[in-house]
Amino acid sequence: MTQKIYNFAAGPAVLPRPVLEEAQRDLLALPETGMSVLEMSHRSRTIEHIIQSAEEDIRKLAAIPDNYRILFLQGGASLQFSMVPMNLLLAGGKADHIVTGGFAKLAFQDAQRVGQINLAGSTESEGFVRVPDQDELVLDPAADYLHLTTNNTIFGTEWKIEPQSGQVPLVADASSNIFSKPIDVSKYGLIYAGAQKNLGAAGVTLVIIREDLLERSPPSLPAMLNYNTHVKGNSAYNTPPVFAVYILGLVIKWLIGQGGLGTMAQRNGEKARLLYRAIDSLEFYRGHALTPHRSNMNVTFRLPTEELEAQFVKDATEAGLAELKGHRSVGGIRASIYNAFPREGVEALVSFMQEFERTRG
Amino acid sequence: MTQKIYNFAAGPAVLPRPVLEEAQRDLLALPETGMSVLEMSHRSRTIEHIIQSAEEDIRKLAAIPDNYRILFLQGGASLQFSMVPMNLLLAGGKADHIVTGGFAKLAFQDAQRVGQINLAGSTESEGFVRVPDQDELVLDPAADYLHLTTNNTIFGTEWKIEPQSGQVPLVADASSNIFSKPIDVSKYGLIYAGAQKNLGAAGVTLVIIREDLLERSPPSLPAMLNYNTHVKGNSAYNTPPVFAVYILGLVIKWLIGQGGLGTMAQRNGEKARLLYRAIDSLEFYRGHALTPHRSNMNVTFRLPTEELEAQFVKDATEAGLAELKGHRSVGGIRASIYNAFPREGVEALVSFMQEFERTRG
Repeated sequence: MTQKIYNFAAGPAVLPRPVLEEAQRDLLALPETGMSVLEMSHRSRTIEHIIQSAEEDIRKLAAIPDNYRILFLQGGASLQFSMVPMNLLLAGGKADHIVTGGFAKLAFQDAQRVGQINLAGSTESEGFVRVPDQDELVLDPAADYLHLTTNNTIFGTEWKIEPQSGQVPLVADASSNIFSKPIDVSKYGLIYAGAQKNLGAAGVTLVIIREDLLERSPPSLPAMLNYNTHVKGNSAYNTPPVFAVYILGLVIKWLIGQGGLGTMAQRNGEKARLLYRAIDSLEFYRGHALTPHRSNMNVTFRLPTEELEAQFVKDATEAGLAELKGHRSVGGIRASIYNAFPREGVEALVSFMQEFERTRG
Repeated sequence: MTQKIYNFAAGPAVLPRPVLEEAQRDLLALPETGMSVLEMSHRSRTIEHIIQSAEEDIRKLAAIPDNYRILFLQGGASLQFSMVPMNLLLAGGKADHIVTGGFAKLAFQDAQRVGQINLAGSTESEGFVRVPDQDELVLDPAADYLHLTTNNTIFGTEWKIEPQSGQVPLVADASSNIFSKPIDVSKYGLIYAGAQKNLGAAGVTLVIIREDLLERSPPSLPAMLNYNTHVKGNSAYNTPPVFAVYILGLVIKWLIGQGGLGTMAQRNGEKARLLYRAIDSLEFYRGHALTPHRSNMNVTFRLPTEELEAQFVKDATEAGLAELKGHRSVGGIRASIYNAFPREGVEALVSFMQEFERTRG
């Protein structure tokens, strides 16, 4: 019998089993079509319906207000790093960025290639072990927007509450914790997220944008880099990444079926507490992030030596606990436990941690 | 028994059956991994191997010279419409575009948002029924590149031989006929193609670029819009569209297994001849493209009246011949018969055309 594998990858990450099973069942032909979703025209009613249903289900799942548009784009969060300033910076304008991790820093650097971007706060000098407090932020009330990264995949920190930005629209890269808990979308001007952590497979980026911000995009932008193109085209101005949208749609339906974002928040909280409790109660392990800033999605920790960390990853992999190696910029161990990651996998990791300490300690 | 359906869609389009069957078989877990390709880290050896193998197989299939780099990007051909001028226009430079159809025109318009682009030739006034002759082109020998669209999906025309551009690099949108026949890559500076017609599913764009052109990209470009980012990152600077690259890799292996580009050219030529012969020999049908310019990929034709065209599409759909409606800008009928489209489907369409004329004539 094949060993059960728990996939702790930071993204692309584990998908709900029923989603994979439905995708497999229908891969040769979607019901009543006689064609694979991989070979159907994006102008067909079936594919238009898949895109529209995904949007409607997202609206339902996250109670998206009517004055927000939902887009399915390509290029990952990384392309949003430049699309956001291209579209949201006013002529001669400026924006604030908060830098709380690796991707936040890339977003800051890329936006600077587009316009005037100011650093409103950073915890880099502390190794990104936390996000800044409100009173540490240097916010420009005349900024065109304030950009933050809601969860820091590499360092394992998470904003527990949004920073206050007054009238300045909040723009969030929410790739690594979107829909892991309820979100008040009305607090944001724009939210974007690559799908491959909490929403589905790689290849599609969710963008939720407040309608009034669409007026900012300069008409001189190339078509694909202008949000208005995709709004007008219902995310099918050109051929969209059909299969990735299809999988995302199945994941959203699965989230609704599980009970929605409240249920997910409860489950994700329980999974994270189990793991942090092990880190705090065992001798061998030391969390990377400061306790109040700990992420419920990416749990980062160290062992006494790098040799032990390497041994931990090796032994864990053999035990069916895969992809636990921390990002190269932090080292140590990272367990990513997104929406679809099962509680049994966390329990298996905790048991493994106890056993590893007992035998290697 | 379910009716056999032949899918004449212009893209996304029919995929080889063995590719779909392998993808279905392995969807829950790739052999020896215990994980779905949809949930595997792009930094895992398995996914790195999938990307690398796809590249190696493309090199083998199309005899790509060593001084060309192969990239798997997102955003479709439509994003290349602006990425090409962003990267290949020199400071204060200019480029020539040939406009031979709907996508060629979009490419021309989008490039104009980036820099100085001149119209080197157009057949728009003739309804894009052909591509220009060499002596009609107004070519600037000081242009940074000359852009063409090798096959015009909407109008059903195809360049039979590349235009002569002297020392000016040729840049080609080859989305709708790439790898349908042998291609001499050394004639081009850059070739790009959305995968969803001849290469696989929607969600990945193949870019083949001559190495020396990489020096042109201004360092001020946002990371995702700079070809060098993707060259340095081996197409995994950020999370690539893993599943779309995986499917593309399977299709390339299938093309090699079929006998390569020479075999495909022969088969595609035979399929197209069958269909054009029916158009020319029956009373009811009239080809859109001028004979010497006819595409082997997209066969466009009209019937005596729009009512008959609507009836033709309706009856054909009921007979299992799907997606035959022409693009709204041309009207009439379009049969897209890319690499993976089977000869039996063309034969079925020819029989249907004969029967339709006999009963409705």
